[in-house]
Amino acid sequence: MTMRRRLTPAIADVRRAVRTALTGASPTADEPTADEPASDEPTAVHRPLVLVALSGGPDSLALAAATAFEAPRLGLRAGAVIVDHRLQPGSADAAAEAARAAAALGLDPVLVREVTVDGAGGPEAAAREARYAALDAALADTGATRLLLGHTLDDQAETVLLGLARGSGASSLWGMARESGTYLRPLLGIRRSITEQACADAALEPWHDPQNTNSLYTRVRVRQRVLPTLEHELGPGVAEALARTAEQLREDAEALDHFASEIIEELAESAEAGISLPVAALAANPPALRQRLIRLAVRAEFHVSLGRAHTLEVARLVTDWNGQGPLDLPGVRVERRHGLIVFSAAAIHPNG
Amino acid sequence: MTMRRRLTPAIADVRRAVRTALTGASPTADEPTADEPASDEPTAVHRPLVLVALSGGPDSLALAAATAFEAPRLGLRAGAVIVDHRLQPGSADAAAEAARAAAALGLDPVLVREVTVDGAGGPEAAAREARYAALDAALADTGATRLLLGHTLDDQAETVLLGLARGSGASSLWGMARESGTYLRPLLGIRRSITEQACADAALEPWHDPQNTNSLYTRVRVRQRVLPTLEHELGPGVAEALARTAEQLREDAEALDHFASEIIEELAESAEAGISLPVAALAANPPALRQRLIRLAVRAEFHVSLGRAHTLEVARLVTDWNGQGPLDLPGVRVERRHGLIVFSAAAIHPNG
Repeated sequence: MTMRRRLTPAIADVRRAVRTALTGASPTADEPTADEPASDEPTAVHRPLVLVALSGGPDSLALAAATAFEAPRLGLRAGAVIVDHRLQPGSADAAAEAARAAAALGLDPVLVREVTVDGAGGPEAAAREARYAALDAALADTGATRLLLGHTLDDQAETVLLGLARGSGASSLWGMARESGTYLRPLLGIRRSITEQACADAALEPWHDPQNTNSLYTRVRVRQRVLPTLEHELGPGVAEALARTAEQLREDAEALDHFASEIIEELAESAEAGISLPVAALAANPPALRQRLIRLAVRAEFHVSLGRAHTLEVARLVTDWNGQGPLDLPGVRVERRHGLIVFSAAAIHPNG
Repeated sequence: MTMRRRLTPAIADVRRAVRTALTGASPTADEPTADEPASDEPTAVHRPLVLVALSGGPDSLALAAATAFEAPRLGLRAGAVIVDHRLQPGSADAAAEAARAAAALGLDPVLVREVTVDGAGGPEAAAREARYAALDAALADTGATRLLLGHTLDDQAETVLLGLARGSGASSLWGMARESGTYLRPLLGIRRSITEQACADAALEPWHDPQNTNSLYTRVRVRQRVLPTLEHELGPGVAEALARTAEQLREDAEALDHFASEIIEELAESAEAGISLPVAALAANPPALRQRLIRLAVRAEFHVSLGRAHTLEVARLVTDWNGQGPLDLPGVRVERRHGLIVFSAAAIHPNG
């Protein structure tokens, strides 16, 4: 594959995003810190390895090209991992083509991982779960310190809209994190069209996954119909606005989680076969904190995640007390007793 | 006007929403509390008055009818206030017609207030400002303790989408509050179609404001095109999901504001011609809190509202400190000095 070496604005945008992500990320356990500098001239094999998750589509292909360029300049090695979901005929060919493109970009190692997607939780959720399991295994197998994902600003906006449509709570609006453990998403601030341009500028030919135009998928309908309608009716910049919103909501939620986990340390007391929180302290906190404290207590003690409706039922034992009896919720029994909200093991197992 | 007295599901829904709002609202200064009961048989004039803001459209007409029914049963008097925005020919006739409908429902007093809308901040913002000023004046003139507004779940969903499109921060996603000072919005959980049905069931003929179909207004485009597209592509229940989301985000934001105002009391110190916050304390708080503390300090001392970009610039004096000089922001100068972030009067007035 012959590549033009011309630096265009689109290529520069993607490279800058990758450089910022790789230099700004929190250090991982395997990376040298300022206190323990790496040896002056590390041999190639000792340089930390980052992997790009490559589908062959324009987003991840542009990411792979930019990472191949930037990583050596930052003292890093860069490889690629391609997940073959085996959901359609020819998927192995597409994976092999992506692997050839990665090798041509100079990425090394290039791993192809076949996965089996079973339908649990819907086809999109099942494919996602299989994909992330394979990516985690690739990290473990190669000792890579980072995995770079090609999600763009458009993906982020779509995620926020999907979360809104579900209404399953603020957390569904956070979108995806720029950094989450070893995962980095350098392109969350870059429009998809820029990645397409970067590929064209570099004479890279992306693969167009037919699943990306299958309107049976909700995300595809969001991409093809909902977001364009929003941009047409409300003006350009809607995708950027959605992405900005996700960032702020994520900050807010993280702050509240921070306070809740600080407060619960002080409040929670072991109770007979469970845990308790004082009514007075729950009442003194604003609703968003009260709900988080309830959810935290239940999760910590019983490994159960309470939904909003159940959480609000428990909160009413604090705010609308009129002598209610115990609440039997999935996995936990909750009652108010002697100024405490007492969480104990469920009387009857919900699936028992 | 002859009204059928049949109680239909739609009428029952609207009445229940009004009853819940009027009985669940926080007491206002003018209302008797449990400690100071009203006299056993208050004369009509001594019963607290609530006002319905009536446009004559289906939402507020259904609200007016339900309030006329429920208020006397709760020991309240109910009146109406109609704002004539004088934005189109015939607006006075529409206002007079709404006033007749209100009187026919038994509302008393019925006030019609003419306002002048000047275009400052766009036609929608200017109309809203003039309307709320007239409503506040009506409250003051009549001594009413509550003003009931007819916003529905559809209005709430539209507000959230408008906020998203602006991306001007999480606060634009909170939607409208069920209760805000003396204002109540009893119908935020009721679909607009239910209010239309309630009017039809009661043989009430709502006025259809031509502005509500003028697609020059962004809100009208959201109503007519964006929300229907979302419901079509993502399934029914999107409006409800948006409204639920707004409620949770409002709770989160209120909790963070609560913590920020508690913390700032401890942290803020008067500085030469201004106020200061310790760097260490700002650094120890999560970003969402840090930003709120910065905004609170500036607002309290200089009555200036910092936007997100400027707030983040100040935050970088804490988190990305490399000896930056003072920041001259609109209305305030901010610098880091001796472990403090010092806010002082702007060196040069931004408009000076």
